[in-house]
Amino acid sequence: MSVETTIIEMAKAAKAASRQMALCPSARKDEVLLRIADAVVKQSAYIRTENEKDLVSAKEQGLSDAMIDRLTVNDATIISMSDGLREVAQLADPAGAVTRSWKRPNGLEVSRMRIPLGVIGIIYESRPNVTIDAAGLCFKAGNAVILRGGSESLNSNQALAGIVTKALRETGLPEKAVQVVPVRDREAVNTLLRQDEYIDLIIPRGGEGLIRFVVENSKIPVLKHYKGVCHVYVDDGADMEMAQNICFNAKVQRPGVCNAMETMLVHKLIARDFLPEMGKRFSDAGVEIRGCPETCRILSYINEASEKDWPTEYLDLILSVKIVKNMNEAIRHISTYGSDHTEAIVTSDYERARRFVREVGSSVVLVNASTRFNDGGQLGLGAEIGISTTKLHAFGPMGVEELTTTKFVVFGDGQIRQ
Amino acid sequence: MSVETTIIEMAKAAKAASRQMALCPSARKDEVLLRIADAVVKQSAYIRTENEKDLVSAKEQGLSDAMIDRLTVNDATIISMSDGLREVAQLADPAGAVTRSWKRPNGLEVSRMRIPLGVIGIIYESRPNVTIDAAGLCFKAGNAVILRGGSESLNSNQALAGIVTKALRETGLPEKAVQVVPVRDREAVNTLLRQDEYIDLIIPRGGEGLIRFVVENSKIPVLKHYKGVCHVYVDDGADMEMAQNICFNAKVQRPGVCNAMETMLVHKLIARDFLPEMGKRFSDAGVEIRGCPETCRILSYINEASEKDWPTEYLDLILSVKIVKNMNEAIRHISTYGSDHTEAIVTSDYERARRFVREVGSSVVLVNASTRFNDGGQLGLGAEIGISTTKLHAFGPMGVEELTTTKFVVFGDGQIRQ
Repeated sequence: MSVETTIIEMAKAAKAASRQMALCPSARKDEVLLRIADAVVKQSAYIRTENEKDLVSAKEQGLSDAMIDRLTVNDATIISMSDGLREVAQLADPAGAVTRSWKRPNGLEVSRMRIPLGVIGIIYESRPNVTIDAAGLCFKAGNAVILRGGSESLNSNQALAGIVTKALRETGLPEKAVQVVPVRDREAVNTLLRQDEYIDLIIPRGGEGLIRFVVENSKIPVLKHYKGVCHVYVDDGADMEMAQNICFNAKVQRPGVCNAMETMLVHKLIARDFLPEMGKRFSDAGVEIRGCPETCRILSYINEASEKDWPTEYLDLILSVKIVKNMNEAIRHISTYGSDHTEAIVTSDYERARRFVREVGSSVVLVNASTRFNDGGQLGLGAEIGISTTKLHAFGPMGVEELTTTKFVVFGDGQIRQ
Repeated sequence: MSVETTIIEMAKAAKAASRQMALCPSARKDEVLLRIADAVVKQSAYIRTENEKDLVSAKEQGLSDAMIDRLTVNDATIISMSDGLREVAQLADPAGAVTRSWKRPNGLEVSRMRIPLGVIGIIYESRPNVTIDAAGLCFKAGNAVILRGGSESLNSNQALAGIVTKALRETGLPEKAVQVVPVRDREAVNTLLRQDEYIDLIIPRGGEGLIRFVVENSKIPVLKHYKGVCHVYVDDGADMEMAQNICFNAKVQRPGVCNAMETMLVHKLIARDFLPEMGKRFSDAGVEIRGCPETCRILSYINEASEKDWPTEYLDLILSVKIVKNMNEAIRHISTYGSDHTEAIVTSDYERARRFVREVGSSVVLVNASTRFNDGGQLGLGAEIGISTTKLHAFGPMGVEELTTTKFVVFGDGQIRQ
């Protein structure tokens, strides 16, 4: 069978499975999720043997240490996949929930009911745990899912998919509800992205290159996750200790993720009080600071930031710092250089807190809290499938509800249109 | 200036205007809408003069009568545009509304707040009134909009845009919040569809050809409106008079629109009671019936339906009729041949009503009411910008709320991530 035929058959089978999944009672779905959670642990030796095959060829092909690290399934990965599935099983089932209902003057009762999206395609890079994490969330919402991982992790992904398929079969649910693309050929991705007749949504998970490729080539709607150039603005009159703790947490707690702070904006009236101690704390933690000329005058030991720094997502222990003359300048800076991802203000002023919230258009806007809270789990959505940086359908962290849509249900007693 | 430069400059200006629009108070937006509503009536002579230019060239180019009809702006069109704007002004402003809020165990207060999408591109065919109707809705939700109408209606569209721009200027709002593409060149559309850096959403309004072209070529998310192959299923035990009235209304009241019934499914146990009278009523109204073999045995005067009929959107006084042995067969038929648009059941059975609602995945599912109610106004959303047949972002009628997204707002008192 050609790659193209393989993919089209998978997409058709997923569509058929999605119709059955849409009617699957919550309890059955949760039963499958818990079965997989058990099986992943029980079959960990098998998973690791298959993963070892991928690791051997990765090393033969000379992949980077970072890539091999992402590719590796160890005990922690196994437990994290299993625990993740148990958490997803405990979430409320979004499918079938009525989000709103109202009555029309002619007596029609109208409501909006959540239903699964249908078929979701996930295109991801080397981490094999995405196979389980993403499949679990899509499945919980009643969707069928097609997973296309990196070619270097095919053995690992197929081992995990086999465990899922067995659980589906044992529970009497459609096996084709979760499928892993079984071929390495890149043509598979191109074909997948053209199946808009069968697939309702594509979620790419990986670097910017992968995401741009998918956006360029997909006929199917894509939920994108571009970069996070996140800002904290420390306002005049902010609690200095709170501001320090929030900025430190936002930069240092986990610098390699999208919701870490990349630029700190400081009101000029407090810069001389705030920056020396804050700068020391950052330097002690190994953070390289790149500042605007005014910042450089206060912190003599740092380098000047160039125009290139402001829009940069470092994902590292590097921070750019700019002194601004007021909140308006801070908001303008954010709107010019930011990525609409996560922005925070530290302030004790009621009016400026309100204005910051109103005027900053990012997907998560925080007052007196760390940018690191932009995360589905932290914000109370349960596990997340990603953080959307485009505004359509979902903006910000996407939980299981974002894997559904709504239909209108109308109850009448014979109404016709005049 | 080249077409490409023109379009890119428009898109950039729209993005800048959208930032101002996002902060515009509701009262100012409504003031502009009412000003335009007045101006459209006051300037009707001017609008019709410009429209006449379009009509003259359309006739010279030998466009069809149907196209010339759609292109014509008459008194009724003027009043309808003006009334439409007044209605939109009266709708609640969706921007800034908090759709939900909750508290986290660590004290963070999280909420989801509606914000405008940003910049919306509308690509439409000959009806000039779309210029006003679509601009009004996008504007109400706080978006900037770029309108690209059919090249045959450019004079009319520019006249209408001029009226809008004047109202924006007089109210001190950004003039670039509503722009009409000033060139006929088709290259303009291609360029527009690549401005994903500045434009957040494309809504094509027109025939299937236009929509497919936009989907194929857009890098920007598209809200699509494909065909409506709508079904009414008349169940065993349904109230015969109610069923007749609903089916008649669904087919005959306005056959040329997407929510008209195209196929009637009838339970075999009531077919002999129901079809003769129903068939006569349809025939008297000039409806051509195409039936399955069993239907043909009951209604001797009709032609047999071919396999091609079942997935066809006639948009005309033609109806296909199929006798089914039970509701399962009806649902299977809908799922095989339907377009996920609008489906109704006429029944008096509680359990089957519930099952139909649950098992039919169309954007609007009705019990004992006409399919013609799939309409934003009829369902209580206010004016509609279209009916989405894809599931992402919006499924079914889209009102002003569907022209917004939500951001997360988080209030804390110093929380940092552990």
